Parts: sequence; C-alpha cells; structure tokens
Amino acid sequence: MPRYRLTIEYDGSSYAGFQAQAGLPTVQGAIETAVKGFSGQDVRIAAAGRTDSGVHATGQVVHVDLDKDWPAATVMNALNAHLVKEAVAVLDSQAVSDDWHARFSATGRRYLYRILNRPGRPALERGKVWHMKKALDAGAMHEAAQVLVGHHDFTTFRDLACQSKSPEKTLDVARVTRVGEEVHLVFEARSFLHRQVRSMTGTLVEVGLARWTAQDVADALAARDRTACGPVAPSDGLYLTGVAYD
Amino acid sequence: MPRYRLTIEYDGSSYAGFQAQAGLPTVQGAIETAVKGFSGQDVRIAAAGRTDSGVHATGQVVHVDLDKDWPAATVMNALNAHLVKEAVAVLDSQAVSDDWHARFSATGRRYLYRILNRPGRPALERGKVWHMKKALDAGAMHEAAQVLVGHHDFTTFRDLACQSKSPEKTLDVARVTRVGEEVHLVFEARSFLHRQVRSMTGTLVEVGLARWTAQDVADALAARDRTACGPVAPSDGLYLTGVAYD
Repeated sequence: MPRYRLTIEYDGSSYAGFQAQAGLPTVQGAIETAVKGFSGQDVRIAAAGRTDSGVHATGQVVHVDLDKDWPAATVMNALNAHLVKEAVAVLDSQAVSDDWHARFSATGRRYLYRILNRPGRPALERGKVWHMKKALDAGAMHEAAQVLVGHHDFTTFRDLACQSKSPEKTLDVARVTRVGEEVHLVFEARSFLHRQVRSMTGTLVEVGLARWTAQDVADALAARDRTACGPVAPSDGLYLTGVAYD
Repeated sequence: MPRYRLTIEYDGSSYAGFQAQAGLPTVQGAIETAVKGFSGQDVRIAAAGRTDSGVHATGQVVHVDLDKDWPAATVMNALNAHLVKEAVAVLDSQAVSDDWHARFSATGRRYLYRILNRPGRPALERGKVWHMKKALDAGAMHEAAQVLVGHHDFTTFRDLACQSKSPEKTLDVARVTRVGEEVHLVFEARSFLHRQVRSMTGTLVEVGLARWTAQDVADALAARDRTACGPVAPSDGLYLTGVAYD
C-alpha cells in the first residue's frame, strides 16, 4: 500500500481544530473527504501536530495510505482539486516508505506566533494575528525567552488537560523579533505540550509590556505550577510552520 | 466644521468596491455608517482612490467633516469600535484644514500587486493573492516594466469604461521583486487610469512566463489600443498601499 507524505497549509479559523470530530468541520475531515473524493477510499490520515481550533499551519505534515501507486504530483493536484472550497491546500507530496510516520518519525516542530502591534485593529489579517495596541519591547521579550530554552519541566506552560505523560521537554529555539508592525515569536522543539506555545507567548507578552521581568519568567518556570503562567495567547496568531524529519 | 484625515485598511473581498452603491456592501458605506453611529451625522466621505470590487487597501486615505471638534485619537478609536464587525479598520487619524482634500490634495498613489507563485494553491491567502503555478521570471518582468515608466499614452492599459479625460499619465516607479514564494509588483504615479495596474500586471506576467518579451510590452504600449493589452490580472492581489501629499 503506497504511503504519501503531504505538506499542508490551512486557515484554522474555518475549522474546529485539526482532529476529526463528528459533526464539526475539521482539517482532518476536509483532507479525508478529499482523499475519498479522489480515490474512493475511506482513510484515516496521521499528522505531525494536532493543532487546536483556530490555529493555522503553513507546514503541517500528514501521511496517507492509498491503494494505487499514483505519481506523487497527481496525488497533490487531485487533492487540491477536491479541496478547492476548503481553506486547506496541499503544498507538497512525496512517496515514502511504509515505516515512515508523519507523527512518530518527526524529530522537530516549529511554530510561529504573530502579534500585530499597532494602535489600529487588523482588517486584512483578522483571525490571523493577535492584536496588541500597546508597543511591545521585542528585545526584552527575546531576552526573557532565553530563560525557557533548554530541558525543563514545563508544567507552568502546559494546559491542565494536556495528556502528555511527562511535563519535561527540551525547547531548542525561542526567538522574538520585530518585523515591521508585527512581533514574531518562533519556537522549535522535538515536541511541545498542549498549549505550550500559547502559554509561553502570553507570558512573554507580559515582559514586552514591562509588567513582568525575565526573572519573573524564570520564577514562573521554576514554580512548576499552572497558576504561575501568564495569560494564554489566543489561537489566532499561531502557525505550525514546519516539521523536521531525520 | 473640523475635517479629519483617516488612513484606512480593508479586505476588499468582503465588499463590492470602495464607492457607495445602494443595497450593496461597500467600504464607503461601512465607514459612513460607522461615522453615523459615532457622531449621529449623515456624512459623505471623500477618498484618494475608489478601488474596485475585491481590491484591498493598507493605506487608503479618506477625509470626513464632523460637527464637533474631537481629539483625532477619539475619532479613530470610536470609528474602530463601530467597525468591529467590518473588514475595515482606521489606522491613523489627523485633524486637517478645511481646504485639505483626500482626493484632490493627493500627489501620488502607490499600489502593490501580490502574486503567489508556487505549485500549491493558497489556503491562508485566499482572495488576497493571484495564484500562478508556473515559475515567473521576476527579473525579466522588472526589466520589461521599465518600458512603462515615464510619461505615456496608456490607452492600451486602460479599461474601456475608464472615465479619465486623458489617457496620458506619468508612471514614476514600476518595480518587480521576488519575496519568498511571492512576486511583488509595486507601481507609483500621481494617479492611475481605471484598471491600469491590473492591466500592466497581467501583461508583465506574460513576460514572466516567457510568452512576451520587453519589446512586446513596448509595442503594446505604442499601439495605444486596448486590444493590444495582455490578460488583466484579477482584483485579488491588488492593494492600495499608500497615498502621498505635499
């Protein structure tokens, strides 16, 4: 059974999250319906990251097993034709071996969080950015973000509903930069806890507003206590931008 | 009567163009309704550029006359509060003199045209870019664009319905650059003819696809004949990004 690796972009504001849920529009549901339309098969796809409702992706990776051995480009073009009314697009398609798995073979995930930092609210990027009127100190946010880099118990930055066995993770990269009217936060790790990126982002925004210091972030991390976290950033500004494989 | 200059951003895909039309959602209608909600006044606003249906703006400029002398920031915040369900936002507000006019005082307009140039269709930027699957040669497009710079009779690049008295305009800047997966075309002039930017863009894309040469563009311009124009680019990728005043 040929397996295909697909790179996927989607606008999360149109969906109740990635994961299939009966009666709700989901990214997984949209892709599986497109596969059915193209191949006639009832399939279950696997994904590198099961993003929450409202979270976007420019580089989600999934895999799907098809009965027939199609050229990879045909799979991509046919799925895009079936997805034309959806806010989901296939950006790349590759044939992979049977033991390759979109989720379990992944060795890294990268997320981008976009904050529109200007007095005027967004008209063009509604639902695609978090709007902050007050000027953020991106340099202070970047400095404080370095406190989070490394191997830590991230209980403070983990949703209470998180089902991961361990709260310990290694954060490889935390980078905060100003890009015109936006502040961008980039995080890279092998994997993340549930709501970890939004929890870290909301906390670092407190630093950007000069309400918290880098030491406050270090203390919150050391507390290993969910109630020590800053406000959780909304889903609007979050993008899964890439998945790494060996 | 205090006059206010407002800088406006909007997502044109939600509107039947800028200009008010009875029974249709328009940008002008949305702003005038917001002014009514804020001040109780029935006003008519004036704009630097009356963009077509589907065309966006990040730097449209309008003016409005209010009965009361409000602080400029109050006007901006109150209008944004009344525009919260619209894809229109006020980015800046300034009090100006009575003889300042958003349209007639303008000495330059700048437009950006965004082409998403990759095999996969857009999911996040649907309606915000023109999608071209085949790779465009942005360098060749830029070179050919220089043919259009200067004072010319732009009859070839003018919609048949254009109401401008003269087809002669001076194009100051035409710049084509590749920005990641996108090709950006920037045009600057004192003013433009109806559909001029989309007509020039569609024609330059023919060069990017190696179907036309720069000489073909020069010949089309010299023909002063609408039928000599290349295909007209769709409204999706077009943005009014700025208006200059002395």
